[in-house]
Amino acid sequence: MNVSIIGIGLLGGSFALVLREKYPKMHFIGVDTSPVNGQLALAKGIVDDVMPLAEAVSKSDLVVMATPVNVIIDLLPAVLDHLPSSATVIDLGSTKGSICDVADIHPKRAQFVAAHPMAGTENSGPGAAFRELLPGKNLIICDSDKSNTESLTLAESLFRDAGMKLFYMTPKEHDLHLAYVSHLSHISAFALGLTVLEKEKDEQAIFDMASTGFSSTVRLAKSSPQMWAPIFDQNRTNVSNALAAYIEFLQQFKQVIDDQDVATSLDFMKRANVIRRVLDGIEKR
Amino acid sequence: MNVSIIGIGLLGGSFALVLREKYPKMHFIGVDTSPVNGQLALAKGIVDDVMPLAEAVSKSDLVVMATPVNVIIDLLPAVLDHLPSSATVIDLGSTKGSICDVADIHPKRAQFVAAHPMAGTENSGPGAAFRELLPGKNLIICDSDKSNTESLTLAESLFRDAGMKLFYMTPKEHDLHLAYVSHLSHISAFALGLTVLEKEKDEQAIFDMASTGFSSTVRLAKSSPQMWAPIFDQNRTNVSNALAAYIEFLQQFKQVIDDQDVATSLDFMKRANVIRRVLDGIEKR
Repeated sequence: MNVSIIGIGLLGGSFALVLREKYPKMHFIGVDTSPVNGQLALAKGIVDDVMPLAEAVSKSDLVVMATPVNVIIDLLPAVLDHLPSSATVIDLGSTKGSICDVADIHPKRAQFVAAHPMAGTENSGPGAAFRELLPGKNLIICDSDKSNTESLTLAESLFRDAGMKLFYMTPKEHDLHLAYVSHLSHISAFALGLTVLEKEKDEQAIFDMASTGFSSTVRLAKSSPQMWAPIFDQNRTNVSNALAAYIEFLQQFKQVIDDQDVATSLDFMKRANVIRRVLDGIEKR
Repeated sequence: MNVSIIGIGLLGGSFALVLREKYPKMHFIGVDTSPVNGQLALAKGIVDDVMPLAEAVSKSDLVVMATPVNVIIDLLPAVLDHLPSSATVIDLGSTKGSICDVADIHPKRAQFVAAHPMAGTENSGPGAAFRELLPGKNLIICDSDKSNTESLTLAESLFRDAGMKLFYMTPKEHDLHLAYVSHLSHISAFALGLTVLEKEKDEQAIFDMASTGFSSTVRLAKSSPQMWAPIFDQNRTNVSNALAAYIEFLQQFKQVIDDQDVATSLDFMKRANVIRRVLDGIEKR
């Protein structure tokens, strides 16, 4: 079985590494606009070959698209055009609405499976890929009723064999939830990083005075701009609403602090503490 | 040597645990308004005795104040009143301006050392204390020139023996920096927790769809309201300015997303990425 990975970065590379372990006879073809990434992926044993897109797709039984979401949208029609009639395309993009819209108008829509693994790190590129990224994580499949049985069954089997738990929803539901539980926390971290860097021109002061709490909160500010800018753009209505709600809470919090209203400040934090239940669950997962 | 720990929680308890290991003959007296905390601290071997405040202080060579900062301010005059003439008081509060103001007008000011360890977790109480919290972390001493040589030398020796690296600054500098590198990240996490909990009434949805990135960013929302409300209140001018700067960046980010201005979105994130240098340093520390 030939598997092409388009975009051999953190996610595409990690998916290839876990599949290789489960299916030693799968043959992996890497497609990447960066020749350096291709060489790194070969050297790291993520893929067996590197090829141009059209050639790779036409030889594939399965194509996995793991580029930034704007590139998935740009390439998906061509990938479907070149796809053999019994093959399957899976995308792993972090937004699903715009990608499914593009797929929906293609004659080969049924060979496409829209998926999103709830996994990532703040690092990127093939050097960041590791076999343990996906096992134990959740994965969302959107519009599964629009995929044909063969393609859907193949995708589900591979994700389950990679140790993932599957959930199903519409692209609309997916994009709304993700704006809150993922996209917003990235923007909150990017803005926190900017605020602190602007104030503390002397990086040594941040270094000396910051503790692990700061590191944890701002960690996502290390994330790849090339990956995240298209996500925020494609999911802009939901992200903008989530940001508006977040800014509103921050403004309320600021007012409470300005007013020296310690009782309301306590109340805000006690309500926020409820998140402990959810986080303890995620950490045990 | 008798050491009283006023407030036997995460910080006071962790400091006692690391000192016990270095100085097996030190005798630790716990002071806590919660009888349960006192019993837990005895059971966990954090302290040898539990006593009321005045009795404990009058028997002490060293008093460590590790309560919420408003309680430090309330108790510090009485602690200094009861303090034997050759003894020392150290406070470990997260704000330094208001606490030093109270100390400055007391006749025994020279027996007081104002300190703040850059360490903590989102957990609280004696059950959360652990010996490894402080070793390897930084500690700030404020207004060291106002402490007498004996008290300052004792405090410095104990902190160094606890494995900490010492920095010196004024309370004003301390409170300004901490507003950015610590207090702001706590508010950002509390507000993120509130935003997500308000939107996602169904906690299961957050649980299913959140990844480790969300956990990391929102982790500090688990922190103790009783500890943090007084910190935000005492450092309200700096915290309010930091929050205003943060809200401004978020509003700019929102505008950029609303305008579909992907180039500026990329630029924001690239500038925020600079934080990687600082974080990599903190993690290696």
